[in-house]
Amino acid sequence: MARQLFELAGRDPAHVFSPYCWRARMALAHKGLDHETIPWRFMQKDAIKPHNSEKVPVLVDGDVSVCDSWAIANYLEDKYPERPSLFGGEGGRAMARMINSWSDVSVGQIAPLIIADIHAGLDPGDQDYFRRTREKNLGRKLEEAIADREQRVEDLRRWLHPLRMTLRAQPYFGGTSPNYADYIIFGPFQWARLTSTFELLATDDPIYGWREKLLDMFGGMARNSPAVAAA
Amino acid sequence: MARQLFELAGRDPAHVFSPYCWRARMALAHKGLDHETIPWRFMQKDAIKPHNSEKVPVLVDGDVSVCDSWAIANYLEDKYPERPSLFGGEGGRAMARMINSWSDVSVGQIAPLIIADIHAGLDPGDQDYFRRTREKNLGRKLEEAIADREQRVEDLRRWLHPLRMTLRAQPYFGGTSPNYADYIIFGPFQWARLTSTFELLATDDPIYGWREKLLDMFGGMARNSPAVAAA
Repeated sequence: MARQLFELAGRDPAHVFSPYCWRARMALAHKGLDHETIPWRFMQKDAIKPHNSEKVPVLVDGDVSVCDSWAIANYLEDKYPERPSLFGGEGGRAMARMINSWSDVSVGQIAPLIIADIHAGLDPGDQDYFRRTREKNLGRKLEEAIADREQRVEDLRRWLHPLRMTLRAQPYFGGTSPNYADYIIFGPFQWARLTSTFELLATDDPIYGWREKLLDMFGGMARNSPAVAAA
Repeated sequence: MARQLFELAGRDPAHVFSPYCWRARMALAHKGLDHETIPWRFMQKDAIKPHNSEKVPVLVDGDVSVCDSWAIANYLEDKYPERPSLFGGEGGRAMARMINSWSDVSVGQIAPLIIADIHAGLDPGDQDYFRRTREKNLGRKLEEAIADREQRVEDLRRWLHPLRMTLRAQPYFGGTSPNYADYIIFGPFQWARLTSTFELLATDDPIYGWREKLLDMFGGMARNSPAVAAA
């Protein structure tokens, strides 16, 4: 049976941009496992209901389905132990959860900086839903949220300082080579990069250089993935 | 030869409180290794100069000396591989560095909340040096730094949110049992606890419950360690 990944897509079905789906996508590539993308939109709750999920990513691997990027990474590590390790041992797996939690807070910090751009790239059928739910969370209009982003990106850059300190000492968060810790952190950067032209990082930031290397992995999979189509 | 750890001490030589020394101290206990504490004060730079360090902790293990808590943890893991692992594998070691970097930022966030209390517990010979160097860094008097701590502790609590999210899913940062990831994060909390009565955590915070468990480890080593003597 084919391996399939339900991934959030924009107006262009090839525009797959969710930070969580990118974590799963990179984890699959790290394990050397092919997959077929099933583009999914917010309005297609029914498509993933049989897998007991309301969100993507959902991985369908033969007769098994797995929801949630963290669960997918754990499933892949356990199901394919002979392939390159995502965690580098049980200690790495436990600590990756802390990095995952840290990075999920980053998602919440990045979102207001790009949220109107994300909206612009969505499938028209998703736009009302997205605007309504996100404006309720933000407590303001999407366009207002991004208005002062030039100033507020500095808060994000301070928040990211532990990453910089780590990259001074080792090339990847996984150590001498990338592993799931890197893909956790990469997901939100790739999300921002594919949905918005607003640059989160200064070009002389070590995190920028690290991101470049991640973009080149797996034959440039992340670099060559389509960004949002011009509105 | 005896194993010795140079540890920052206050007026009371048994008052060892440095966050970095506590990381080393917990790592030694995790490995089941005894050590003798050599109380050290800021003014005793000469005592550790032979070990090519200006800061503590400095571990002297037979004819080897190791400076810096991160280096000490790595040394112990490599030198005593047959004893309980601090990292749980190479992936854990790499990711622990990211957690270490994150936690070092926490130290900078906690410091202004307790800095005048730290000063009060220092050896009189250290107090002028401490005040001068810390006030230069803070850009204000120690007493001014702590004045609005009731408000600013809320910023710290937000910063700590990834810890809370992690502890919802697993009892320790190291997974089902504590490892060096836990000691990294514990160090700054123990530092604050031993130097100040100002409480960083609400009692219903999951981090509070986790800290209680760390305090009880190794026969209550951390809980029974003397806090600052009343001024």
